[in-house]
Amino acid sequence: MSMLIQNAEFDGVETDVLIEGNRFKAIGKDITSPDAEVLDASGMAIVPTFVNAHTHASMTLLRSYADDLELHDWLTNYIWPLEEKMDEEAIYHGARLACLEMIKSGTTCFNDMYWHFHGVARAVEEMGIRATLSSVFIDFSDPAKAKEQRELTKRLFREVEQYSDRIKFALGPHAIYSVSKESIKWVKQFARENNLLIHIHISETRKEVDDCLALYGLRPVQWLDKIGFLGPNVIAAHAIHLIDSEIEILARNDVQVVHNPVANMKLASGSMPFGKMRDRGIRMALGTDGCSSNNNLDMLEEMKVAALHAKLLLRDPTALPAGDVFDMATVKGAQALGIDCGKIAEGMLADCMLVDLSNHRLAPGYNVIDDLVYSADSSCIDTVICDGKILMRNGCVAGEEEIVAEARKYKQKFQ
Amino acid sequence: MSMLIQNAEFDGVETDVLIEGNRFKAIGKDITSPDAEVLDASGMAIVPTFVNAHTHASMTLLRSYADDLELHDWLTNYIWPLEEKMDEEAIYHGARLACLEMIKSGTTCFNDMYWHFHGVARAVEEMGIRATLSSVFIDFSDPAKAKEQRELTKRLFREVEQYSDRIKFALGPHAIYSVSKESIKWVKQFARENNLLIHIHISETRKEVDDCLALYGLRPVQWLDKIGFLGPNVIAAHAIHLIDSEIEILARNDVQVVHNPVANMKLASGSMPFGKMRDRGIRMALGTDGCSSNNNLDMLEEMKVAALHAKLLLRDPTALPAGDVFDMATVKGAQALGIDCGKIAEGMLADCMLVDLSNHRLAPGYNVIDDLVYSADSSCIDTVICDGKILMRNGCVAGEEEIVAEARKYKQKFQ
Repeated sequence: MSMLIQNAEFDGVETDVLIEGNRFKAIGKDITSPDAEVLDASGMAIVPTFVNAHTHASMTLLRSYADDLELHDWLTNYIWPLEEKMDEEAIYHGARLACLEMIKSGTTCFNDMYWHFHGVARAVEEMGIRATLSSVFIDFSDPAKAKEQRELTKRLFREVEQYSDRIKFALGPHAIYSVSKESIKWVKQFARENNLLIHIHISETRKEVDDCLALYGLRPVQWLDKIGFLGPNVIAAHAIHLIDSEIEILARNDVQVVHNPVANMKLASGSMPFGKMRDRGIRMALGTDGCSSNNNLDMLEEMKVAALHAKLLLRDPTALPAGDVFDMATVKGAQALGIDCGKIAEGMLADCMLVDLSNHRLAPGYNVIDDLVYSADSSCIDTVICDGKILMRNGCVAGEEEIVAEARKYKQKFQ
Repeated sequence: MSMLIQNAEFDGVETDVLIEGNRFKAIGKDITSPDAEVLDASGMAIVPTFVNAHTHASMTLLRSYADDLELHDWLTNYIWPLEEKMDEEAIYHGARLACLEMIKSGTTCFNDMYWHFHGVARAVEEMGIRATLSSVFIDFSDPAKAKEQRELTKRLFREVEQYSDRIKFALGPHAIYSVSKESIKWVKQFARENNLLIHIHISETRKEVDDCLALYGLRPVQWLDKIGFLGPNVIAAHAIHLIDSEIEILARNDVQVVHNPVANMKLASGSMPFGKMRDRGIRMALGTDGCSSNNNLDMLEEMKVAALHAKLLLRDPTALPAGDVFDMATVKGAQALGIDCGKIAEGMLADCMLVDLSNHRLAPGYNVIDDLVYSADSSCIDTVICDGKILMRNGCVAGEEEIVAEARKYKQKFQ
């Protein structure tokens, strides 16, 4: 199977792009490939699709269920009671809705943490995108629960082999306040033995820091460093409440950080110290977090808010320019997950989108990256390709009406 | 001419809405009107359209021309040189593109300040939306220029009568640093004599405050109060660098403030003291500013950023909840402009939109206002009605391809 994308604008120049199998084979002028399916991209720009580096996809089912509340009220009276009603079937339908929304807004890869692993995996498999999936690990220091979670993790690690290469397995210890020290260490060891990524929330709230100080006399990053947890396979979401020495620890351990500006603002969690992390060379990707704290999975919006937030925080209009935040949303997310997508280059996985340059939001058209970061919305995206296959064409995804109809049933089911 | 919108979801209940002429005539169950054009709105919610309370519409032609730059570099090396190339024809094409973008994202009324008044007015007239238009008044304390600007203002005030009732005239003194004291006073007097609104930038930058202190020994709001300029007919855009006593002055004079969070963040101008203004009961509307500092005119996005910004600024997730920011973007903007739109109620001007509840971003559908503020993008909007006339149906606006094509020509013309 090969596909020839003709006459696409690539870095400002009309270009042909040949995909063979699931990778970019050739990029240049006047490429010929007699057997390839031809896709005319005249009037469109070809750009990489996004990598959403931290989310809880199935929380689409909680979208706009509870907003503008104090964190404790929000969690205990709204989010947790609803999550208890979610079985694997609900998780599956939520994840399908999430994949649909991601495809529509140009995302073809995400890093997830949630319950009912197979519900999410089945949705990702069917929808044709990529995901690094972790089954959230929570034991609240209960030894029986810890044992159960370890067994589940080992079982899921074996069972993930049934899925295609688009699905990767990662470990998902929720946070230091919800996972025992013993289990945190077990996760680290299991990751080492099996060469796995670890996806964890770090220092999202001030309470997490205060509790850690009270319990261990150390701040979260200091404590995680002390027990030998940190390393380049750790993907730390949020990373807000950090002092300079913790930023130094993260840099020294080459921990990968995911910035979630929309959720951090919406929950008033605080501001990730973007400038200091950037200056210290910490690797940063971008994520939307789940729909209960965002309330969408739109990386176009997340890029803009990230850029705006950095400029406000640093009082500097040159901070986090469009090109840099676009990289965070694409290639840097891919690198965090160890997947060779996020960039249009020969040999890379064929994940890309075609952006309609005749869309009003992209006119006059001085700079397509600036336009995507600061002006576009999902209506600008015409075609989405993942793993060499077309997932959206002319803005349409196969089966979308049914996916939305199934998701809408949960409004009644949950209330 | 009458139109009957049937089976629309209104405040959660299936409702019919009858429009007669340009106003809502009846809202309720099972309305009949044999002569009315029927519009089936099954599966859609009816909500008011937005009022963009501060923009420079024709700056769409500068979209993504210059981003992520220091303010002085940005203005002097990019924005001003390009603006010098803009004649009335360019302004017209820029304003058409702006009106198209606004309609597509649910805005049917805007408050504008720019050059070449008739270029903007002609576009608004053709596109069918409402606007309060001011010809920007700048004299840089040059008496000859001041005389010319006053004559122009008087002439345009007479000439605006050629347009429909959808177009209102306002005065647009740019800012206290670009308009002489004498002209500021003249504007105030002319507004009083002719019952006009005054649209002005106030305290957008720290430099404006420092210069005012150096020149008059007073801060901008203090000085404007002293010369008797302030009042309920003053619409103050940005209003960032204010001390408590200035907030008190604005409140005492019932000045109307327009919040522009996206532009304020993008240019790193600072944060409008939203919480203090809210607590003092100052009337606040919402605006996108021009496309060179945003880079779009999307009030859906502006609402979300306003809510996120307030929560971050006040460290309070309950600050500026969805319902309140929706009101700022609709009825409060309309009230600021003295136009009885922005609300779906019998007797009000018939400006409204139909939102497609089968859009994936609005599923499962717990709360349509929360969904619009926190999740939607323009792809959720199916139909837009202004002044009783349909401007968009099934997401399509008449003539949009030509409008975009004309605007795209300026990429070559300007470079």
